[in-house]
Amino acid sequence: MPKGQPLTVPDDNLTTRQRRNRPLLMVHTGDGKGKSTAAFGMALRGWSQGFDIGVFQFVKSAKWRVGEQTVLERLGALHDETGEGGPVQWHKMGSGWSWSRKAGSTEDHAGDAVAGWTEVKRRLAEQTHDLYVLDEFTYPINWGWVDVDDVVETLRGRPGHQHVVITGRRAHPELVEIADLVTEMTKVKHPMDVGQKGQRGIEW
Amino acid sequence: MPKGQPLTVPDDNLTTRQRRNRPLLMVHTGDGKGKSTAAFGMALRGWSQGFDIGVFQFVKSAKWRVGEQTVLERLGALHDETGEGGPVQWHKMGSGWSWSRKAGSTEDHAGDAVAGWTEVKRRLAEQTHDLYVLDEFTYPINWGWVDVDDVVETLRGRPGHQHVVITGRRAHPELVEIADLVTEMTKVKHPMDVGQKGQRGIEW
Repeated sequence: MPKGQPLTVPDDNLTTRQRRNRPLLMVHTGDGKGKSTAAFGMALRGWSQGFDIGVFQFVKSAKWRVGEQTVLERLGALHDETGEGGPVQWHKMGSGWSWSRKAGSTEDHAGDAVAGWTEVKRRLAEQTHDLYVLDEFTYPINWGWVDVDDVVETLRGRPGHQHVVITGRRAHPELVEIADLVTEMTKVKHPMDVGQKGQRGIEW
Repeated sequence: MPKGQPLTVPDDNLTTRQRRNRPLLMVHTGDGKGKSTAAFGMALRGWSQGFDIGVFQFVKSAKWRVGEQTVLERLGALHDETGEGGPVQWHKMGSGWSWSRKAGSTEDHAGDAVAGWTEVKRRLAEQTHDLYVLDEFTYPINWGWVDVDDVVETLRGRPGHQHVVITGRRAHPELVEIADLVTEMTKVKHPMDVGQKGQRGIEW
């Protein structure tokens, strides 16, 4: 995509620099592939700029995202060793969340989602990360496990300069309303439609 | 995205394993953000599986993709040092192409695009890479600089097990026709519409 010029200049009394540095809320939605992959691509880009990256995976899965997790955690370790790029934390639901190190498995998915969102809220208040990837976060919102008004209020009022990317199908209209950037990934053609199964290096 | 099951089982006499390992042609098109970012995210995933990655950037630009290039080349160097992941080559048009190391700048964009495609064809015939990212490759096709019939014939007939991802707006119908996976990224909302300019860590 060529570097574009704004279509209009807003009447907000901000300098270009202030506007340029505005923290963004981004939403990747739609039924097509690439929502999460593009979000992890952004994390990769942020890493190279020295951003502190926090990934929160709101879905239980063994295989999915393993490739991205491996690479981003490796980049985070590289930062710790050499100072290149930025630090990376990758948290996922599984047996609870990775920060809680709870023993055994929990089957309370709604409770896990709420615990995840509570932790993200705490970190936003403390300005822990520069970029938050809330992967598949549309689902616990749509299922009513996490209150959309709470999400909207928290994200609108987040302090400092924290970018947030939310992925998942059917993003809630209120989320779309407050987002700075919304991209819909539409499936035109998918190998699974003609019997192709997921494969190594492509789907995970 | 939860791991899906195929909707139908094709009548192609292939085992699931053969079908699973089929090389894919993927196209990311549409006017929205995320086409290239998702392609680089795939490269990241492929790297973690040990894929040999070749990126070919069919657009001249100083700033764009710098973050992705830095990270992927760093991962490629990591592979060379430690054996982790796979090797990475990143080639871009600028003063000619990075493999040709031509002195001075060329203003023959059409000629550069043809030279790029000729090199990609040569590598496909020699099975140089496991994953090719042909970034912004729809443009030289649509502008008639690269012959779409040649592209279609080459990609259909490529030997071995080579994945190809092509990005760019308005993918040619013949390209969509032969692709295994096509995703359209649609812009729902973009900060540039309301005067927001591109910023560090987000756009580059």
